[in-house]
Amino acid sequence: MAQQLSDRRDFQFALFDQLKADELTQSQLYGDLNRKTFDMVLTEARSLAVKEILPTAVICDREGCDFEGGTVKLPQEVHRVYELIREGEWIALSDDLDAGGQGMPLTLWSAAMELFHGANTAVASYPMLGHGAGKLIEVFGTEKQKELFLGKIYSGEWGGTMALTEPDAGSDVGALTTSAVKNGDGSYSIAGNKIFISGAEHDITENIIHPVLARIEGAPAGSEGISLFIVPKIWVNEDGTLGDPNDVVCTGIEEKIGLHGGPTCSLTIGGKGQCRGWLLGEENKGLKAMFHMMNEERLSVAIQALGIASAANMYALNYARERKQGRHLTRMADPAAPPVPIIQHPDIRRILLWMKAQIEGLRSLNYYTALCIDKVKIAADDEEKKWLEDRIAILTPICKAYTTERACEICLQAIQVYGGYGVCKDYPVEQLFRDVKISTIYEGTTGIQSMDLLGRKLGMKKGVVFMDLLKDIGRIAGEAKAFPELKDLGENMEAALERFGQTALHLGQSAASSKVLAAFAHANPFMDCAGDMMIAWMLLWRAVTAQPKLAKIVGDADDEKKKRKIEKNKDAAFYDGQVKSARYFINSMLPVTLGRMDAVTRLESAAVDIADFAFGG
Amino acid sequence: MAQQLSDRRDFQFALFDQLKADELTQSQLYGDLNRKTFDMVLTEARSLAVKEILPTAVICDREGCDFEGGTVKLPQEVHRVYELIREGEWIALSDDLDAGGQGMPLTLWSAAMELFHGANTAVASYPMLGHGAGKLIEVFGTEKQKELFLGKIYSGEWGGTMALTEPDAGSDVGALTTSAVKNGDGSYSIAGNKIFISGAEHDITENIIHPVLARIEGAPAGSEGISLFIVPKIWVNEDGTLGDPNDVVCTGIEEKIGLHGGPTCSLTIGGKGQCRGWLLGEENKGLKAMFHMMNEERLSVAIQALGIASAANMYALNYARERKQGRHLTRMADPAAPPVPIIQHPDIRRILLWMKAQIEGLRSLNYYTALCIDKVKIAADDEEKKWLEDRIAILTPICKAYTTERACEICLQAIQVYGGYGVCKDYPVEQLFRDVKISTIYEGTTGIQSMDLLGRKLGMKKGVVFMDLLKDIGRIAGEAKAFPELKDLGENMEAALERFGQTALHLGQSAASSKVLAAFAHANPFMDCAGDMMIAWMLLWRAVTAQPKLAKIVGDADDEKKKRKIEKNKDAAFYDGQVKSARYFINSMLPVTLGRMDAVTRLESAAVDIADFAFGG
Repeated sequence: MAQQLSDRRDFQFALFDQLKADELTQSQLYGDLNRKTFDMVLTEARSLAVKEILPTAVICDREGCDFEGGTVKLPQEVHRVYELIREGEWIALSDDLDAGGQGMPLTLWSAAMELFHGANTAVASYPMLGHGAGKLIEVFGTEKQKELFLGKIYSGEWGGTMALTEPDAGSDVGALTTSAVKNGDGSYSIAGNKIFISGAEHDITENIIHPVLARIEGAPAGSEGISLFIVPKIWVNEDGTLGDPNDVVCTGIEEKIGLHGGPTCSLTIGGKGQCRGWLLGEENKGLKAMFHMMNEERLSVAIQALGIASAANMYALNYARERKQGRHLTRMADPAAPPVPIIQHPDIRRILLWMKAQIEGLRSLNYYTALCIDKVKIAADDEEKKWLEDRIAILTPICKAYTTERACEICLQAIQVYGGYGVCKDYPVEQLFRDVKISTIYEGTTGIQSMDLLGRKLGMKKGVVFMDLLKDIGRIAGEAKAFPELKDLGENMEAALERFGQTALHLGQSAASSKVLAAFAHANPFMDCAGDMMIAWMLLWRAVTAQPKLAKIVGDADDEKKKRKIEKNKDAAFYDGQVKSARYFINSMLPVTLGRMDAVTRLESAAVDIADFAFGG
Repeated sequence: MAQQLSDRRDFQFALFDQLKADELTQSQLYGDLNRKTFDMVLTEARSLAVKEILPTAVICDREGCDFEGGTVKLPQEVHRVYELIREGEWIALSDDLDAGGQGMPLTLWSAAMELFHGANTAVASYPMLGHGAGKLIEVFGTEKQKELFLGKIYSGEWGGTMALTEPDAGSDVGALTTSAVKNGDGSYSIAGNKIFISGAEHDITENIIHPVLARIEGAPAGSEGISLFIVPKIWVNEDGTLGDPNDVVCTGIEEKIGLHGGPTCSLTIGGKGQCRGWLLGEENKGLKAMFHMMNEERLSVAIQALGIASAANMYALNYARERKQGRHLTRMADPAAPPVPIIQHPDIRRILLWMKAQIEGLRSLNYYTALCIDKVKIAADDEEKKWLEDRIAILTPICKAYTTERACEICLQAIQVYGGYGVCKDYPVEQLFRDVKISTIYEGTTGIQSMDLLGRKLGMKKGVVFMDLLKDIGRIAGEAKAFPELKDLGENMEAALERFGQTALHLGQSAASSKVLAAFAHANPFMDCAGDMMIAWMLLWRAVTAQPKLAKIVGDADDEKKKRKIEKNKDAAFYDGQVKSARYFINSMLPVTLGRMDAVTRLESAAVDIADFAFGG
């Protein structure tokens, strides 16, 4: 039971050995936090995940949410586990002490959330939503708003949402029509219909706070006229006591492929003309405020997908170790040969190593991005702060799109490892796929992220932000070349890096030319290239970190002796496993990426040239 | 409603214009069948699919099968539609007239089945199973067996299954333990447990005939000692009347991610020692018999996946035409610009053209393989027959593995086109994904097919079978080069073909060397390369076929005039769409394939080298 989640070793390796977050722990930000504290928190998170959250996974999937008469009821087990998460003060683990948070790093929160999502993402969605809604109020709220709402949200007493989407304003949120009219008391009357609002109605908290995007009467059309409001489900009086229900009615929940324990709600706001809200931040700056928070939210979704994928990997791994089927490939012709665990079959090993490499790379990439967010708070000066913010901005769409897409694939590959059992509900992996699928869509689809990367991020500061990123990758490739064991990997990486730079330049220039439509038809393949490069970077970084530690254990014995040591020593195997992941990815996946770069560079325009009705039908 | 299935045009194009199946219609095999007859049959199949089968899709998914006390009940709507399929004599459409079939080509049956699967694969599974079980009896049965069973199966009065899998004999079917003991009357007493048997219990037919693999007492271990038996659910007396139930008990059905209208059964055979069966074919030759039929069965699963994927494509296409969201990319900065149908966004067009190209390529590939099977029957001599059988043997694992994997991806991409609605059950695409997923697993997983291609097929006749295939692809590339409009595609294809040949040679040699394990760790990436090459071949073949037809309509007008003609003329658009599919695939996908060939050629061995416990956990 405990084995379906990664142990803490890889988390620690990514956070400390590779990313050297421990240097940060000496900083003003983290005070006296150190590796030991991190480990303690992670141990507790894992224990909560495995013992309490995991057993609710199947319950959430099978029982789901019960919608009746405008209310959503969740299974009792979810109530119980949510209370444990609340009591453990997990929701605002990484938020400011002053605001009622625990003041710990976002990297640590991400690691904890990864474990919660791996155990049952439906339950983990509630702290994710609370954290996001609270953050908006923490950053943009008045003192009074913070006093009234923030403590209750961060403590988990009240839930939170993000109410953006409307029937005709999804990816194009600027098209929204929910309206706001100012009242005499400074509040606003809000009216409109929202759809696809996660967690907008349920019975696990006594109140739910909706940050709602709406347009103030007379405001400009499009994105420039959108404001943000705090709309509580139940009105909160000046003294903090609860008033009457606030005319926010849940009119239905979606029946989804997965995530059955997380209600996706349609809301009628102000249907009786009696919904009030408070302006959050400035008038007409709502979308900007929302997007300010979007980076962190998108990272949260990436962590969610990573957690689910990581659980799928662990399940598949354990199954491959236990399930015996077929003879060893070298004894195929011998009918007397015994069946072997399927982990001994090369094709299964390929799947398992692909999963491992992807997950390790994704873990490092997402933690690295979280670390950058953490570092913003302790930046020495504005220049450093801006540099970090730019780095976060360019990595965020990659984290979101690439992690969620690969997470879906990982869950599908886990199904393949299980064979026929993989599609059966008696086994856990088909649910993991169903639960993870939404992550490629909400908080901006893969297509939207890809357009963001090509259209907005690649050209930031005339490409300097992108070039800086390439430089950092190049540095790791250089370090690899200094190890005889990693020299070829460093060289391959350098060659790939150069091609990646050329591809980006070519595509970026095309996007700014008359070939703009063709260029954007390659935004998604370019996203794939970018994601692959990030994973290769992170895996090589891991290998560079692991290699000396491996050498320390296995010494300069000959290959055969080394191999035997590695097979007996868990630490050596772990470090060697880091090198193997990098070796696999750079030699078996990166050549495919190079091919994709070729394709992007060719800029074939058939997709934009073809006549609409030639698509068929 | 009618639009969720492809119209017949592409079927006709693939069967007649491209594959020139009409030449066959002049042959002894198809008698006086011609293009018009094909069209009539397809029209009827499509009408049945859209009007009758499609409305049962959601019913099957939501209500599923009802298991109680050893029996499985299907929704009444399935009973009704199955009767229509029966009455239309679809089950044995392509089987011999003498055996009670309609004597039409398998290509035509495949096209009809594609439409049925696209409408509701759960319902289409029943004729698929009947056809397969009947074929075994048709080929291996005695006259008496045919007399007793075949007519009833082909008419659909009785259902059929294929009972291979056991709890410890899945991919390794040779490990099975079901036993058979000969009785005095020539029948055998069968005893054992089978799992994952599709359609092994239901209430839509009065009897079900199970071809069962079992081991006769004293037979050799492994694959060499397996025999095939006809085991009816209800005993069939000598005179054809029904006797007593035959001690074949369904002990449960799997709850699966999809295909809810198709019961996946566990069977206890002879639990009370009273199950009897008849030997089908020779003793100990059962696996060989079963595998003889497996080619056709695997093609059936490929057609199933293709049908589902094709429906997903049509749904996504229609949605993209209707759903308005966001401004046109060239008017992004203009807040007054109206929202456009999402088909106008380049990233959506990329997805749609990718889907179109894949489906057209897969359709041609699978029909081509079906055509080869048809041609076996009319081969002029043994040499031609063997040539065809070899061609079928090498293409079958590619058809099965590559079609089913791509079909899953196509359904996932359809979900992306729908955005948030894609994961909702109010929309059709999430079910299509859930229904198609099992196709990558049953009848041999993708991993098993990949090993088959590398381990058995690539080296057939010292590689001559493979080289012959390359030659045929090269011929089409040569034809393309003769058209100025397709010259670059022909050249790119020739270059890819050379690299493909080298890759295959290198991998094949490695598989026969001490690097065998590393080689098989690349069996699956090689399968992907092979599949991509087949699609590129088929698309180029289509383009070569379409180009002169296009030229005939648009003449030698200038580009702008041509474009306008294409936009107004459905035929021109269709032919131009063929060229665009080829152009897209060869320029945007094939470079990725070349990268994958590089990766395969590098033969990285990390996956086989890594220590088992270094995988983590």
